[in-house]
Amino acid sequence: MKDTDPRSRIPALTDAILDKLDDCDAVDHVCTCPLPHRETVGELLTLTERLLFPGYFNRKAVDKANLRFHLGQTANDTYEMLTEEIAKCILHSRRNLSDPDPEGARAEAAAHALDLLESVPQLIEVLDGDVEAAYLGDPAATGNDEIIIGYPGFRAILTHRVAHHLHERSVPLLPRIMAEFAHSATGIDIHPGAHIGRNFFIDHGTGVVIGETTEIGDNVKLYQGVTLGALSFPTDEHGNLHRGFKRHPTIEDDVVIYSNASILGPVTIGRGSAVGGNVFLTHDVDPYSKVTIEKPDNRIRRHTPR
Amino acid sequence: MKDTDPRSRIPALTDAILDKLDDCDAVDHVCTCPLPHRETVGELLTLTERLLFPGYFNRKAVDKANLRFHLGQTANDTYEMLTEEIAKCILHSRRNLSDPDPEGARAEAAAHALDLLESVPQLIEVLDGDVEAAYLGDPAATGNDEIIIGYPGFRAILTHRVAHHLHERSVPLLPRIMAEFAHSATGIDIHPGAHIGRNFFIDHGTGVVIGETTEIGDNVKLYQGVTLGALSFPTDEHGNLHRGFKRHPTIEDDVVIYSNASILGPVTIGRGSAVGGNVFLTHDVDPYSKVTIEKPDNRIRRHTPR
Amino acid sequence: MKDTDPRSRIPALTDAILDKLDDCDAVDHVCTCPLPHRETVGELLTLTERLLFPGYFNRKAVDKANLRFHLGQTANDTYEMLTEEIAKCILHSRRNLSDPDPEGARAEAAAHALDLLESVPQLIEVLDGDVEAAYLGDPAATGNDEIIIGYPGFRAILTHRVAHHLHERSVPLLPRIMAEFAHSATGIDIHPGAHIGRNFFIDHGTGVVIGETTEIGDNVKLYQGVTLGALSFPTDEHGNLHRGFKRHPTIEDDVVIYSNASILGPVTIGRGSAVGGNVFLTHDVDPYSKVTIEKPDNRIRRHTPR
Repeated sequence: MKDTDPRSRIPALTDAILDKLDDCDAVDHVCTCPLPHRETVGELLTLTERLLFPGYFNRKAVDKANLRFHLGQTANDTYEMLTEEIAKCILHSRRNLSDPDPEGARAEAAAHALDLLESVPQLIEVLDGDVEAAYLGDPAATGNDEIIIGYPGFRAILTHRVAHHLHERSVPLLPRIMAEFAHSATGIDIHPGAHIGRNFFIDHGTGVVIGETTEIGDNVKLYQGVTLGALSFPTDEHGNLHRGFKRHPTIEDDVVIYSNASILGPVTIGRGSAVGGNVFLTHDVDPYSKVTIEKPDNRIRRHTPR
Repeated sequence: MKDTDPRSRIPALTDAILDKLDDCDAVDHVCTCPLPHRETVGELLTLTERLLFPGYFNRKAVDKANLRFHLGQTANDTYEMLTEEIAKCILHSRRNLSDPDPEGARAEAAAHALDLLESVPQLIEVLDGDVEAAYLGDPAATGNDEIIIGYPGFRAILTHRVAHHLHERSVPLLPRIMAEFAHSATGIDIHPGAHIGRNFFIDHGTGVVIGETTEIGDNVKLYQGVTLGALSFPTDEHGNLHRGFKRHPTIEDDVVIYSNASILGPVTIGRGSAVGGNVFLTHDVDPYSKVTIEKPDNRIRRHTPR
Repeated sequence: MKDTDPRSRIPALTDAILDKLDDCDAVDHVCTCPLPHRETVGELLTLTERLLFPGYFNRKAVDKANLRFHLGQTANDTYEMLTEEIAKCILHSRRNLSDPDPEGARAEAAAHALDLLESVPQLIEVLDGDVEAAYLGDPAATGNDEIIIGYPGFRAILTHRVAHHLHERSVPLLPRIMAEFAHSATGIDIHPGAHIGRNFFIDHGTGVVIGETTEIGDNVKLYQGVTLGALSFPTDEHGNLHRGFKRHPTIEDDVVIYSNASILGPVTIGRGSAVGGNVFLTHDVDPYSKVTIEKPDNRIRRHTPR
């Protein structure tokens, strides 16, 4: 053990860390332009949930008398928080410009926040269909309320519909952080770029991955562990990845994909099809098909009980 | 950008949201009857953990001298919180009755809370077996304490034993919310209806799904990604799902199910059997069987290093 | 319902719980020697993140002017918290000794904390490579910053590199609790004993399991659901598990392992190889090999649309 207080080493240590941070070329380890904080994004998503389903995510009861007040207050809080966080993201994306224009960024952020609030009625309608799809799709559901407050699949799609709205309008960074917040809470990883139709339900959900360029029609149901992923990533002559091209599946209307199935690449699963558990697919499937793994090739041996 | 303060739009926006909420027929988006809050259920589960394993989940140390005081206080807090949350759930389930009888609901909730506390000694005994099973089943375990504070499989079964107790006594909603809280924290999704015997251990755990009508014997061990699920859902002549019938597997005593195996439908895995990794099973298995996938059909190609 | 206040039962209940706790032989349900608290470990990991990536995990902005002050303060806070938590773990591991020597334990803990701080520059360098590997490996990444704040695979490897450092120096308990904290947040379960080389990237990540004696080279990429696990656990003549021997795979440099592949046992995957999605492997693979599942044996039937 040392003779002196180890804390006397901290100033020298701090200098060593500073030197090292200066050395880092490829990755900037120091973020001087504030980014949304993990917990703040969680709070923002809670506000959004309260706006879409008043009373379900509040500690105190909402009643008919205070509903208008509650909604107005929540809309106001959401507007302010959303403006602030989007502004951070815009400024961050412009941090290398000579004039990042903070005033302009804030006005742009406010417009995005207002636009999201204007879309709340439509989001309510779409989420309505998602709750119904969950109830109709799960024999263990005893009512809509347990779906709204408890189902991870519903939490993931609610977050996705908000994040996707912002992503479509080119809000940088925030949609992805929202998606990862939901991923952490639910085990369901939906890239905010994915297009998802109405009446969507993911049951159980842990391990589901839905890639950036996935397109999903109406009335689609997924189970836990389903991957809608990419197959390979073309690179340019310098070995850099192409980014942004279509590399994930298209799932047409009325498709069910059972647990742990993987569908990889820009293939199309035709409408009305069912993809069975554990199926591994890298090609198109005609409409109204049922794909299952061949009679699983299991080997069964008996042994004598000890 | 807008000329005026965008916030002046918020009252009109709020009215648009209110109109839309009024429109929703199938799903009630407004919850005027308070439900348990996600975080409150987390706090309630922490209280329960403190009652079952005093000192492991406290920020301050518990010692022999203050143990009785600590337990009495925790029992009292658990009783009060549990009564309040169960009462919310009962009243919520009666929200469409002409007389939901809040007094009666509260008395019923208090009786349920007391009943759970009376069962704590038995829960302690059963969880004792679960800790031992984890230690005996995992070569990476260095002692019981890391299992109790850290293992997700243990956290999931502790929560399940509490939620299942309430579910068996027909407490509405709360057991499911507890289960989803544990699911979010551990990636392990156990429906509170599942019957699980003694000395149960789930290793790693992420992606495990155990359905509502699953029955599991004593000394069963599961690994990550195991699904004990349903195969298909019969519907009535109106296309509505049947709910509540047996649709998940029965796993007899002394069975091990390795990672990512799926067992689907109301089949029985006989005692003493082992189901190998990635096996996909939809039929009964005799006792003392070992089921593995046939020598995996892999294709191996060499390529020349670049 | 009862005539009397149910709370009058609580003292008797408490005594019944105390009696039961006294009965438990195999498992000590009462922890009188304080252990790190789940949330404290979360706070400690946040401090570490702030030290490694200043400004990314702070609520307030860090700027060039206050960077040195920020780092010094964070280093100091990390040192104090780490010393306290490591001391708890050391004392806990000595709780059955006649003289647990609290003074000595604290000095030892302080030395470990200082040693971790001394390694921060090296950790920064290694994590730099991990951020780059994520950017180069994921076509959906728009920049390094979303990887640092949002990617679960990056959060898991950052936590692992800190936990592994402490584990290598035989700090008891804390590394495992850190690993389980990251597991809960990300669905990625890396035992702190695993050796992982440079430029490591896990995409999506949910369901990944990396066992205690796994060895991974440089430039390795894993996808969601990959298991690097054990095959069977030898026991001694009393049926007790052997602990600590090599039972998990070795993955050489420049290997990619696609989603949901399982590699089990102490096998070696040779450098430059690729293991395809869903592959189940229990044998060695030569360098520069490509292993895929044989053309998946799917059965496709058409049905007439209703």
